[in-house]
Amino acid sequence: MSADHVRFQARKSIEQVEEGNDLAPKFDERGLITVVTTDADSGEVLMQGYMNAEALQLSITTGEAHYYSRSRQVLWHKGATSGLKQTIRELLIDDDQDCIWLRVDVAGGASCHVGYRSCFYRKIPVAADYESKQSEGHIELEWTDTTKVFDPEEVYGDAPNPTIL
Amino acid sequence: MSADHVRFQARKSIEQVEEGNDLAPKFDERGLITVVTTDADSGEVLMQGYMNAEALQLSITTGEAHYYSRSRQVLWHKGATSGLKQTIRELLIDDDQDCIWLRVDVAGGASCHVGYRSCFYRKIPVAADYESKQSEGHIELEWTDTTKVFDPEEVYGDAPNPTIL
Repeated sequence: MSADHVRFQARKSIEQVEEGNDLAPKFDERGLITVVTTDADSGEVLMQGYMNAEALQLSITTGEAHYYSRSRQVLWHKGATSGLKQTIRELLIDDDQDCIWLRVDVAGGASCHVGYRSCFYRKIPVAADYESKQSEGHIELEWTDTTKVFDPEEVYGDAPNPTIL
Repeated sequence: MSADHVRFQARKSIEQVEEGNDLAPKFDERGLITVVTTDADSGEVLMQGYMNAEALQLSITTGEAHYYSRSRQVLWHKGATSGLKQTIRELLIDDDQDCIWLRVDVAGGASCHVGYRSCFYRKIPVAADYESKQSEGHIELEWTDTTKVFDPEEVYGDAPNPTIL
């Protein structure tokens, strides 16, 4: 077993998984684990994605974020096409080890295929704010960022859009 | 249609979903959407969970985080048992509208059923750090937080642990 192949441990008990030092990630029935990626400086959530076992191993050994693209069904080295690589400053795992949190530095400052810094550029009013703005339960999304960091057409050309309706 | 029933729009085009003002969330084949929850002050990721349509509607109308518990298969008003409610300061949705980001204030300061502030209290060394610490691909998790905010036994009593092996 070489250093390029990170070893995951079998999941034996709740105590081991929640309170131990074993790396025993839980991949779901599709072989995936969820990933939350935040900007290491600002704390902003940049994106939410998925890793398979290979993507997690490569993220650990290289220190660059690798994901599994569900729409394209391939291992996805983030930034390989766009140049907007994510360098991992910290890689955390949650209590039951079915979610990864990446704290990253982003080359080029953007992580969203639409061109914004973050994938989260719109918000939904809640509580009293929702009450005052809704009309028969209908509300409009509110924009929190309107400045595109890059032009998706220039960066991705005619590659298919990953959004699935 | 009353204000208590938030209306979701049909998903008609990529432009509408990514660049429009329509709230048109995508629930997966289980009827769920992923949720990332961060501390509104520190930016720390507290947990990653799921909402069904009802949980999203209740989160919007009440301003308190509601989730869907996959292990218990029920609507889950966070804090109903533990008192550790999450008040939503901002509710954002991502580009393709299949992920929610909640920025919250947490009563009692903890969001993790194990007793820690955040569910992410252990990290995995990466890149050169991984290289220097691994032995034949084996690594140990490193603790980033060792102070429990509450005693799970006191708060949850003999309720079943939600972690699934």
